[in-house]
Amino acid sequence: MTKNRLHAIVCKGSFFVFFCRERYNKKDMNTHKNTLGILGGGQLGRMMVEAASPLNLKIKILDPNPEAPCANMEVDFVVGDFNDEETVYAWGQDCERITIEIEHVNIAALKRLRDEGTVVYPQPEILEMIQDKGLQKQFYATHDIATSDFEVVENAQDDSRIAVPCVQKLRTGGYDGKGVAVLQTAQDKENAMPGPSVLEPLVDIEKEIAVIVARDEQGNIETYDPVEMIFDPVANLVTRLAAPANITQKQSAQATELATALMQKLEMVGILAVELFLTKDGQLMVNEVAPRAHNSGHHTIEACVTSQFEQLVRCVMGLPLGQTRLKEPAVMLNLLGEPGHTGVAQYIGMHEALALPGVSVHLYNKKDTKPMRKMGHVTIVAPTIEAAHANADAVEKVLKVVG
Amino acid sequence: MTKNRLHAIVCKGSFFVFFCRERYNKKDMNTHKNTLGILGGGQLGRMMVEAASPLNLKIKILDPNPEAPCANMEVDFVVGDFNDEETVYAWGQDCERITIEIEHVNIAALKRLRDEGTVVYPQPEILEMIQDKGLQKQFYATHDIATSDFEVVENAQDDSRIAVPCVQKLRTGGYDGKGVAVLQTAQDKENAMPGPSVLEPLVDIEKEIAVIVARDEQGNIETYDPVEMIFDPVANLVTRLAAPANITQKQSAQATELATALMQKLEMVGILAVELFLTKDGQLMVNEVAPRAHNSGHHTIEACVTSQFEQLVRCVMGLPLGQTRLKEPAVMLNLLGEPGHTGVAQYIGMHEALALPGVSVHLYNKKDTKPMRKMGHVTIVAPTIEAAHANADAVEKVLKVVG
Repeated sequence: MTKNRLHAIVCKGSFFVFFCRERYNKKDMNTHKNTLGILGGGQLGRMMVEAASPLNLKIKILDPNPEAPCANMEVDFVVGDFNDEETVYAWGQDCERITIEIEHVNIAALKRLRDEGTVVYPQPEILEMIQDKGLQKQFYATHDIATSDFEVVENAQDDSRIAVPCVQKLRTGGYDGKGVAVLQTAQDKENAMPGPSVLEPLVDIEKEIAVIVARDEQGNIETYDPVEMIFDPVANLVTRLAAPANITQKQSAQATELATALMQKLEMVGILAVELFLTKDGQLMVNEVAPRAHNSGHHTIEACVTSQFEQLVRCVMGLPLGQTRLKEPAVMLNLLGEPGHTGVAQYIGMHEALALPGVSVHLYNKKDTKPMRKMGHVTIVAPTIEAAHANADAVEKVLKVVG
Repeated sequence: MTKNRLHAIVCKGSFFVFFCRERYNKKDMNTHKNTLGILGGGQLGRMMVEAASPLNLKIKILDPNPEAPCANMEVDFVVGDFNDEETVYAWGQDCERITIEIEHVNIAALKRLRDEGTVVYPQPEILEMIQDKGLQKQFYATHDIATSDFEVVENAQDDSRIAVPCVQKLRTGGYDGKGVAVLQTAQDKENAMPGPSVLEPLVDIEKEIAVIVARDEQGNIETYDPVEMIFDPVANLVTRLAAPANITQKQSAQATELATALMQKLEMVGILAVELFLTKDGQLMVNEVAPRAHNSGHHTIEACVTSQFEQLVRCVMGLPLGQTRLKEPAVMLNLLGEPGHTGVAQYIGMHEALALPGVSVHLYNKKDTKPMRKMGHVTIVAPTIEAAHANADAVEKVLKVVG
């Protein structure tokens, strides 16, 4: 982003800060002037709406699925394709501010809306860059953000610069582990997914860490404590998260610094989930980012002073940042559809899970389950992280989603 | 309650425990069989719905006000009088379980529904007793629950047994300080509110304490730490609450014991807010109770492992009790309509309040303010209660509701 662009944003920001100071002090707070638009009505949108409920904000959502998790909430729910320019543009006409719960949305419409005076956070240019994993990696490289080596290639099959074993990431369209593959052999490389990709040598990973950073219109930054993510090796999905991460204080400070530096260089308004590798030789490097509420911050609902969802709402609506302090250690489990089960969801062991100490269950209001679909999550708080892990083990044993 | 009645409840309870173990494990969890009915759609209902959202429960509400705080939430909202027997009875037909957010509801309808198989918690007989402050006091007296002296009178004017200064409480219909008066002089007594009342000598109060007790169908009990309530002397409304209360450990244990004993003697299922006097000579005595979510438990949303609202939902739906542990000290401020202001609510100082550390704002989605109307509340958490009080002082200075 150029300095001029930043300047324009800051000026616009100042106007809206004034506006927002007056947000709750106006006769017209029940009009559309107070409406927060969210592109996407899935579970992240649902938890944003839950977080915004006590702030009395009007919310308008666009999602193609009439049975999306947000469909029947206290929102203006519009069914439509958030990848279609005219649909997004028309939908956004009566929003005061717009944000996203999924980054794969139409950018042209967001730019038009922004240029006509609607506040859009994260800024469309940043979404556009992050949508493309090639541009994302190039941004890290040109801004001195530690990241693994990489090559941007037209087709993984044809590239000879990165040898197997390596990781292939499609530049666009990936989500929840889709569009990412480990190429172990020459054969794998020949059969690689077609299309423009990023190739990275395999990194010898000790742990995967995530830091959520929030930045407001004035450039103030708050970070959440680094968390540790444990993945399902097959589905490449986070299955368990521990807050705080079991890393040294120095590593924790370094991870926070790296995530903060990235947010400052992006000059983004909103929240950014920064996923990091801690390598076996002790290096921290950015893997990838999500410019929105993220699975690695679900524990913040119960464990932190301000949840990531409220924090995002505060950022986007021009309200001050909330505190991020961890009130108690927490473990978060994703509640994934059992392999082999498809159909109307049934939750086995809910009674037993809720009887365990410190358990909060979040179901996403999805009618049908399918293998490894994110159906909900469970947060377990405890006075120590060890106790939280032990109770999480017990939850994991009893709670299943079947069809 | 007789032993037989208890036995009947326990048996019915066992059946429903089995049923509830299967709650989330059924194809029909989206049918009415899963519906929780709530009588009353005010702010307490609103916070119950917010708490129930992650549990994917279907909720049906009855409230006479089409603009009630719950009106547009993800609920089946029916406009009607919860004091009218036929209205309540018809409304309750398709609820699996029913509870309340206000105790002044029609009891005859609840008894009919219960007798026909709908689970109603708190039990209608307990609501009926608690609706009448005379019966409430007599229950304490006959069950060895420490309470202040009292006389049940037909008319305060005519009674000579309790001398002024004394407190008059109308036996029925009081709410939020209404129906309660301090009679300082003989003149006050002559002008006392007409109608059946309880008269109590003035108690020399050091502090007012509240303990919220939860009891499930099996008789398991969990209590929240005692909190300290600070009242507005004019409106007789809680303005500030501190958790934990600034009392000795021994007093805290005694208050908890007293509240637990009362809950056990009531054999109630649900949550009970027990308001206690700590007298200047160190005695603890029950003042009155509310058999529902209560203003003295609002801090539990941010400060405790399980909020009072989720706890009530768990009790009523036959789910296991959650932990009540205080994660961090908290102060709760009621956000009352400024005296002298009536009309469409405007919130002055919201931006400044949200910028203070540890602040969570809850607005109740009420369109109009009036003097001392409960428009919302603010919870301030901090690592120490002193810090929470200091930040609460700052919130109190900046945040106002005007019309």
